[in-house]
Amino acid sequence: MKYIESVKNNQVKQWKKLHKKKEREKSGTFIIEGFHLIEEALKVNDLVEIIIISEDRSIPKHWEFNEIELIYAVPSVLKEISETETPQGVTAICRIPKNNQQTINQHHKLLMLDQVQDPGNVGTMIRTADAAGMDMVILGEGCADLYSSKVIRSTQGSIFHLPILRGELSDYIKLCKLQNIPVYGTALTNGVVYHEMKPSSSFALILGNEGSGMSENHLVQTDKNLFIPIHGKSESLNVGVAAGILMYYLRG
Amino acid sequence: MKYIESVKNNQVKQWKKLHKKKEREKSGTFIIEGFHLIEEALKVNDLVEIIIISEDRSIPKHWEFNEIELIYAVPSVLKEISETETPQGVTAICRIPKNNQQTINQHHKLLMLDQVQDPGNVGTMIRTADAAGMDMVILGEGCADLYSSKVIRSTQGSIFHLPILRGELSDYIKLCKLQNIPVYGTALTNGVVYHEMKPSSSFALILGNEGSGMSENHLVQTDKNLFIPIHGKSESLNVGVAAGILMYYLRG
Repeated sequence: MKYIESVKNNQVKQWKKLHKKKEREKSGTFIIEGFHLIEEALKVNDLVEIIIISEDRSIPKHWEFNEIELIYAVPSVLKEISETETPQGVTAICRIPKNNQQTINQHHKLLMLDQVQDPGNVGTMIRTADAAGMDMVILGEGCADLYSSKVIRSTQGSIFHLPILRGELSDYIKLCKLQNIPVYGTALTNGVVYHEMKPSSSFALILGNEGSGMSENHLVQTDKNLFIPIHGKSESLNVGVAAGILMYYLRG
Repeated sequence: MKYIESVKNNQVKQWKKLHKKKEREKSGTFIIEGFHLIEEALKVNDLVEIIIISEDRSIPKHWEFNEIELIYAVPSVLKEISETETPQGVTAICRIPKNNQQTINQHHKLLMLDQVQDPGNVGTMIRTADAAGMDMVILGEGCADLYSSKVIRSTQGSIFHLPILRGELSDYIKLCKLQNIPVYGTALTNGVVYHEMKPSSSFALILGNEGSGMSENHLVQTDKNLFIPIHGKSESLNVGVAAGILMYYLRG
């Protein structure tokens, strides 16, 4: 059993670097923290590579981890590689899944994000997509990095529950159209009130940037662009809230 | 025209203290930041007391402020009293409105929050309540402080758009019942699926704490407790997202 007793250990330095996107891409790994998230990650095949646990904590008995390296460390090591103020004393290193082209079929419900920049919003929308029974999430160009700790924390584990792809939204919009899946964009103006649509078992819904909304070149690719009426004096809804209202409405 | 050139000025020290709840309550004032928020605050009578602006910024021409003190200061003063990383160079001191008992009438739609602790969630729900055309928001015991900068920022100005009261939820639930307003709680279990309800022009909706939900003693006071079905593998929705789905559904 490996045991690390210093924050100056080279592996510790390497793990700490995984809080930066560049290092995650270079190494093909990301870091997650806390018992709940790791438990969810362990349910996915070949995802978790290493578990690092503080010597004053213990691994839950029901965790199964063949072929996963288990490392004990002094509490200061866990604190060193944590990004939270109150570390739970357990961290895991996971492999970034390959961005495989998933098959999109005519029964699918997809959520697509177009330049959503706030990590909390991206994470919350993945969590809501999971809850709403969406089949896939696609992060387009300019979205917050899926493997940043803030996104992962905000998903509350949903990052491990459904396929999340990264790529060009235009390509995925075209794939949806080939499958006769209606593609709904969102817009503040020049749109259709969302509740004029009929809920259906398959659709693709696109949400845009917090400040500027969806990009013009995607807005023209959709079948319809929806908006949520503002009845009071606020200018807009939080994008994560808007996504929730629309997904739950459209799925029926 | 007053001009402040040092961060050691006593007034500056006093303003900085307004980031703490205790000082806000003691002084009966709170601090807001940025052009957009101040513009919204200026639309409310007798709210803004002082505007402090960096000497390298200028007051928008359309702002009207009789009886509001205007103070110029060096940029470092604005930075000193700011809680954001990129201060906009303009700040205002506002009076905390009296928590007047508002009349609740039978046509009202109310949002009540029960121990919602995260300031971002409280602020987002106020913003959504505004957008959904709710008539009033009531913050019960144990909620994040309405006048913290994080709550105010998250409301995006909606804090100035509708009455927001603080008090005992039980009292307000009773007032609603006197007016025949149906009171809907929210629960993860033992509830009614929300879309079994009929949308209506008046209702009170209660959302609870992020981790533990609504308190038991309020759950038994409601007419019905609603839940949002989880179709995927996530355990729950973000409380702000849940509030949005329910308010937009119930208002019809």
